[in-house]
Amino acid sequence: MSTEYPSLSEAQARDAADPLRAWRDRFTLPQGVIYLDGNSLGALPKSTAVLMRDATERQWGEGLIRSWNDADWIGAPRRIGDKIAQLIRAAPGEVVVCDSVTVNLYKLMLALLASHPGQGRTILTESGNFPTDLHVAAGVARQHGLSLDAVPREQIADRIGPDTALIVLTHVHYKTGERFDMAGVQALADAHNVPLIWDLSHSVGAVPLDMGGDAARFAVGCGYKYLNGGPGAPGFVYVAGEALEFLGSPIQGWMGHAEPFAMTDGYTPAPGIERFLAGTPPMLSLLALEGGVDLMVEADDAALWHKSQVLFDFLAQLMAARCPDLAPITPPRADLRGSHASFAHPHAWPINRALIEAGVIGDFRTPDVLRLGLTPLYLGFADIWHAVDRLAAIMDDGRWQRSEYMAKTKVT
Amino acid sequence: MSTEYPSLSEAQARDAADPLRAWRDRFTLPQGVIYLDGNSLGALPKSTAVLMRDATERQWGEGLIRSWNDADWIGAPRRIGDKIAQLIRAAPGEVVVCDSVTVNLYKLMLALLASHPGQGRTILTESGNFPTDLHVAAGVARQHGLSLDAVPREQIADRIGPDTALIVLTHVHYKTGERFDMAGVQALADAHNVPLIWDLSHSVGAVPLDMGGDAARFAVGCGYKYLNGGPGAPGFVYVAGEALEFLGSPIQGWMGHAEPFAMTDGYTPAPGIERFLAGTPPMLSLLALEGGVDLMVEADDAALWHKSQVLFDFLAQLMAARCPDLAPITPPRADLRGSHASFAHPHAWPINRALIEAGVIGDFRTPDVLRLGLTPLYLGFADIWHAVDRLAAIMDDGRWQRSEYMAKTKVT
Repeated sequence: MSTEYPSLSEAQARDAADPLRAWRDRFTLPQGVIYLDGNSLGALPKSTAVLMRDATERQWGEGLIRSWNDADWIGAPRRIGDKIAQLIRAAPGEVVVCDSVTVNLYKLMLALLASHPGQGRTILTESGNFPTDLHVAAGVARQHGLSLDAVPREQIADRIGPDTALIVLTHVHYKTGERFDMAGVQALADAHNVPLIWDLSHSVGAVPLDMGGDAARFAVGCGYKYLNGGPGAPGFVYVAGEALEFLGSPIQGWMGHAEPFAMTDGYTPAPGIERFLAGTPPMLSLLALEGGVDLMVEADDAALWHKSQVLFDFLAQLMAARCPDLAPITPPRADLRGSHASFAHPHAWPINRALIEAGVIGDFRTPDVLRLGLTPLYLGFADIWHAVDRLAAIMDDGRWQRSEYMAKTKVT
Repeated sequence: MSTEYPSLSEAQARDAADPLRAWRDRFTLPQGVIYLDGNSLGALPKSTAVLMRDATERQWGEGLIRSWNDADWIGAPRRIGDKIAQLIRAAPGEVVVCDSVTVNLYKLMLALLASHPGQGRTILTESGNFPTDLHVAAGVARQHGLSLDAVPREQIADRIGPDTALIVLTHVHYKTGERFDMAGVQALADAHNVPLIWDLSHSVGAVPLDMGGDAARFAVGCGYKYLNGGPGAPGFVYVAGEALEFLGSPIQGWMGHAEPFAMTDGYTPAPGIERFLAGTPPMLSLLALEGGVDLMVEADDAALWHKSQVLFDFLAQLMAARCPDLAPITPPRADLRGSHASFAHPHAWPINRALIEAGVIGDFRTPDVLRLGLTPLYLGFADIWHAVDRLAAIMDDGRWQRSEYMAKTKVT
């Protein structure tokens, strides 16, 4: 292990040369804080603050019910969906914004089980997948008399077979940052004619996605992480064009009806992806999401992913030299990971508490992981340098052992 | 029919004597508009505009991920639920805010069907119920191999029997304003041991509710109508305390887990009403809802209901005298209706368009209904007087027959 590492002035020089540097000023970032948790809740775009005043005070306050038409609230789920489609290389009309990742995953799972009444009796997923994916899948399996097969990721490929009814995988792992080979796993699933749902929560806005090119047909994803859509921003549903025809949402809400305001007793699903809408969408949260999505659409995604990689390598080099007791668990190879970097330490909890106290916000994931999110739109090299510098000080002086940090207070 | 009707100065005198008059100033209402659609989307409380700036710019922008604890975002669904519980005479811990009415109805229906595996093969509801209720019920019935029995309200009581698996009723009808006798119908359902879900969307904040007193055990409701929670505000779920024990949400999301941040693979539902949470709640929309709910909790609900009644009678008197061609379809008896007044006319569509053009916002409900919402917090007698005056002018000069009003442009 090398003890040589880049200096602060090197970091500053790299920031000065960063073609994305101007983006930083388009976000509100609190004074004195280095924010490495944009993978959990993205930062507030300054434009979104303006937009939310307009949405609340003009669109709702002045426009009132008229804004469903005049401000095109009614078109927002599809309009924002079309923008997200650009980010994941899907076609217009293949993505709609609604509900939460959890509810969307549930809807899509039931839709696929109903439309693929094959012989499979097992829902396949990864053990240690994000809890909501596991919980939803377990609930759906129980309702359908199926079994849930949750296995380590290296066993997934071998498990796909005639007994598999449905596969649910998170593309980038929330804790370790490991990334599945989307095209490869999709091809395996297709070879067995098993529908596969991708959860893109830690991927969209973080790593290059090409749903069309990878032949991925079903996905859900999250708005409040790398899309900077605000706390609890609505999620999205993706269904590739040709696959939509056979799918119906199990939650037949009026907003998924072909003509919501015809107010008919009978239900006719919308011809397009809007059929996955359920109730009236939480418009203020949708409009906040649109603010974040607009920035991601405007940004050059190749430049973003390049910067994510060089930030990752910069962080890895600094951590290896200065915090050797924190063991990296995220694959160093860029094509095998997302845009966060995780480190294991038996005392990750108090270390993270002490780090937050020192003005660096990452997060802890049970039982032993310190997770640091790299968001190229608003982070720079000097941020990373200072973050590691403060972490190194905490490790060196042992202050994380203080009782105030060891206490298991509630954190998210 | 009397052609005598109250004068504008009488209306003004009643406004001056109205003990609720000061509430009007706590809402943003656009200049030159009389807003009679608060039953569809409530007006913006001025305090909510302030609150939303704080939620966006300070809680999200400055607090970032820390606000889940520091601003108690994590407690919001239950905290706001407890406030709504006060409005419907439920106990603390019996209400949680989440998702939409549609999704909540779906979750509660499935939870009840799973926990009441009786002999009934029919889901009973009212024909002409709000479409999303009918659509959700139809979907659930199909999934469970049950039949949906949608009958006119006067037949509901007779249909409850051994074949009934579940009943779903909207307490106040969205179109006609008719109100069910909650205690009476509940007693019938209880006599047959059939679970009954009430949809309180047009009731909460509009008419007196006493879930405890009426022995109602299951309900869902809407945040964006009389609660003034903002466009698409999240809905709520109510389950009476003793009934919760046997119910589990079919959508097993991480926010409904007993310990969301334990991040366990296995699912253990939260001990309380939080088990009906699914994914991460849309926090900006939740906080906007809380602003509206706080006002309703502060207001004297007996005074509100009294004023709703006198506004209704005032409107009815004016309409009978000045717009006799519009036929009242809402029961005049206060205990048989909600807080909106509907009128039938074969040309209700263009009449409503012309009325909006004249600065009075009510709404049209297919095929022939003009619906006028009475929201005692921000409406006065002079508002009603002017609204009818303008409507009378439209009827008298026949301007509603202009082609621009007859055109079926999209409206909500």
